[in-house]
Amino acid sequence: MADQAHGTELEDAITPNLDRLAREGVTGLLEPVGPGVTPGSGPGHLALFGYDPLEFVLGRGALSAAGLGVELHPGDVAARGNLCTLDADGNVVDRRAGRITDDEARRVVARLSATVQGVEIHHEKGHRLLVVFRGEGLDPRIGDTDPQTTGVSPLDPRPLDPAAASAAELVAAKLTEIHRALAGEPAANGLLLRGFDTHRELPRFEDRTGLRAAAVAVYPMYRGIAKLLGFDVLGSPADLADQVRLLEKHREDADYFFVHVKDADAAGEDGDRGAKVAAIEGVDEAIPDLAAALEPGVIAVTGDHATPSQMAAHSWHPVPVVVHGPRSGRDDTDRFGERWCRAGGLGVRPSMQLLPILMANAGHLAKYGA
Amino acid sequence: MADQAHGTELEDAITPNLDRLAREGVTGLLEPVGPGVTPGSGPGHLALFGYDPLEFVLGRGALSAAGLGVELHPGDVAARGNLCTLDADGNVVDRRAGRITDDEARRVVARLSATVQGVEIHHEKGHRLLVVFRGEGLDPRIGDTDPQTTGVSPLDPRPLDPAAASAAELVAAKLTEIHRALAGEPAANGLLLRGFDTHRELPRFEDRTGLRAAAVAVYPMYRGIAKLLGFDVLGSPADLADQVRLLEKHREDADYFFVHVKDADAAGEDGDRGAKVAAIEGVDEAIPDLAAALEPGVIAVTGDHATPSQMAAHSWHPVPVVVHGPRSGRDDTDRFGERWCRAGGLGVRPSMQLLPILMANAGHLAKYGA
Repeated sequence: MADQAHGTELEDAITPNLDRLAREGVTGLLEPVGPGVTPGSGPGHLALFGYDPLEFVLGRGALSAAGLGVELHPGDVAARGNLCTLDADGNVVDRRAGRITDDEARRVVARLSATVQGVEIHHEKGHRLLVVFRGEGLDPRIGDTDPQTTGVSPLDPRPLDPAAASAAELVAAKLTEIHRALAGEPAANGLLLRGFDTHRELPRFEDRTGLRAAAVAVYPMYRGIAKLLGFDVLGSPADLADQVRLLEKHREDADYFFVHVKDADAAGEDGDRGAKVAAIEGVDEAIPDLAAALEPGVIAVTGDHATPSQMAAHSWHPVPVVVHGPRSGRDDTDRFGERWCRAGGLGVRPSMQLLPILMANAGHLAKYGA
Repeated sequence: MADQAHGTELEDAITPNLDRLAREGVTGLLEPVGPGVTPGSGPGHLALFGYDPLEFVLGRGALSAAGLGVELHPGDVAARGNLCTLDADGNVVDRRAGRITDDEARRVVARLSATVQGVEIHHEKGHRLLVVFRGEGLDPRIGDTDPQTTGVSPLDPRPLDPAAASAAELVAAKLTEIHRALAGEPAANGLLLRGFDTHRELPRFEDRTGLRAAAVAVYPMYRGIAKLLGFDVLGSPADLADQVRLLEKHREDADYFFVHVKDADAAGEDGDRGAKVAAIEGVDEAIPDLAAALEPGVIAVTGDHATPSQMAAHSWHPVPVVVHGPRSGRDDTDRFGERWCRAGGLGVRPSMQLLPILMANAGHLAKYGA
């Protein structure tokens, strides 16, 4: 988001490689879900993969489970958990437990797993957990306990439908046990749950497109959504350099590669403008290596949603996109950034329209009609 | 509408305040109903309020009735009436009876009401009347008698569905009586009817959005559409200065304020380019007062349709829009006008998408999905 004093983080970042893609290719803006709609990561990615995010709905719990390789069965309920810091009055002080380290978080999870029975807790990354309630016919229509803000207490798990009353009771009872077990932890003395969901089946990407797809992502949740759609998930890379190595190794194994980079979004959520600019410049530096690793016929660079550091949150603002390939055409846009891409040849359009444009560019779509 | 010799009236007007909004905010073009579709005022406004104008249909009669506070019941039929001037052959010379004054029009309506029984005639504004046929089971599917042009005779009221045959006969009989009663009037010797409709119930704006809405409009019809959607209608202002005073007084009484200004549209319908430019400059001058009266979090300026003076009629051309607020972002557009706004960050989009964008800017929408 640009304001009077700044361009967007992307506009202000130094990005010679992305600018070259913009200069040689065609640009535009993508609106992930709809006008004014701020997407979660699930709908943002589904749209990029060509799935209508209003037709296909995925809770965070189902995403996280898929990312960790935890199988959900009908009747189970899963939620995304945040380790958090509560003050003496039980109010949330930090929704991310001071960005707790992986090691610390694993220790806390081990302590919880040893103490609290009847709930499965998996560490995901940093403060992020997956919490699974196994049962028969548990209904996932339960309201988030994460208040999405600080200075207030966690919300009660509330049934959003009468059918979810017993599941909500079970969650409330387990949360009481969990908070008792966490008492005395310095940073991670609370747990917030959101995105309750159950087992989901989505149509496979390959069945819809005829393309073999692969994903390389550092964060489990993004591997999770790819896995739910039937992508091959390539390893568990630690960073972008690892991702490049995996792509090089598997370059012949898929037609469509999804490369996810989290850093710019994480910095945006932290409200850290400088870190977000640096993260974007880090992606820019990796572009030549990514291109050399894959030698792709068509390259697209975009986001699943905006995360302006001014808002320290996801937002509804359209995101820039560039499509680069021998048949992409080009436009007059010669820098990659919102203000230049909006005048580009792709116009302003829904994110779910990107995939067919990429497929056409790669020669995967036949003529319609005679 | 721009041509080889002119920009649009808005492009040629001197509008420093609107230009500032454009420079600091984000701009675009709105297409009220669909490509190539010229909207009436009903669909134009419904779209701006976030109602799909193809789903929610309102006849002009229903709009006018709501504006005048005339209650329609199922089975009644209402139409918008224009006092007009007919020549000796019965052809329309002036569809607006020489822009007859309110006083003159009221005198004519009183004369009609005293002479013609079984039809209710209400004066609206200038040449504009509301004509209500009370009955049981009258069907409103009747074709307009307004030919929308001069040099031809008024059309017969034609049933558009067999079920409307008796209603059309009633209307025809009453029109004969009315024209007999108007014989000898110097300017207003004819009556044209259009937009036959009956009682309508529309979902309330507050139920759809959670927002309390208020309207300030000089012309009754625009208060009418707002009232149909459950807006608070603030007074009966005489001019824009009155509107500003009402807004200041009621600034705490609503979340969403609809401020309607008619003058530019009226001048466009008259084909008076100079008057339209002046009307637009009048709106521009009022912007600081409007902003001071409301201190709004988010400002949007747009139209419900185009009315190019070259056409002297509504048209299908997209209308410019600016959205201005702390989270609107900005684009490279620094003047408010069609040719600059079309390169703006909102792109070219349906008018009904404006409301969710405003709601997002004002922080009234939650995140979609996890």
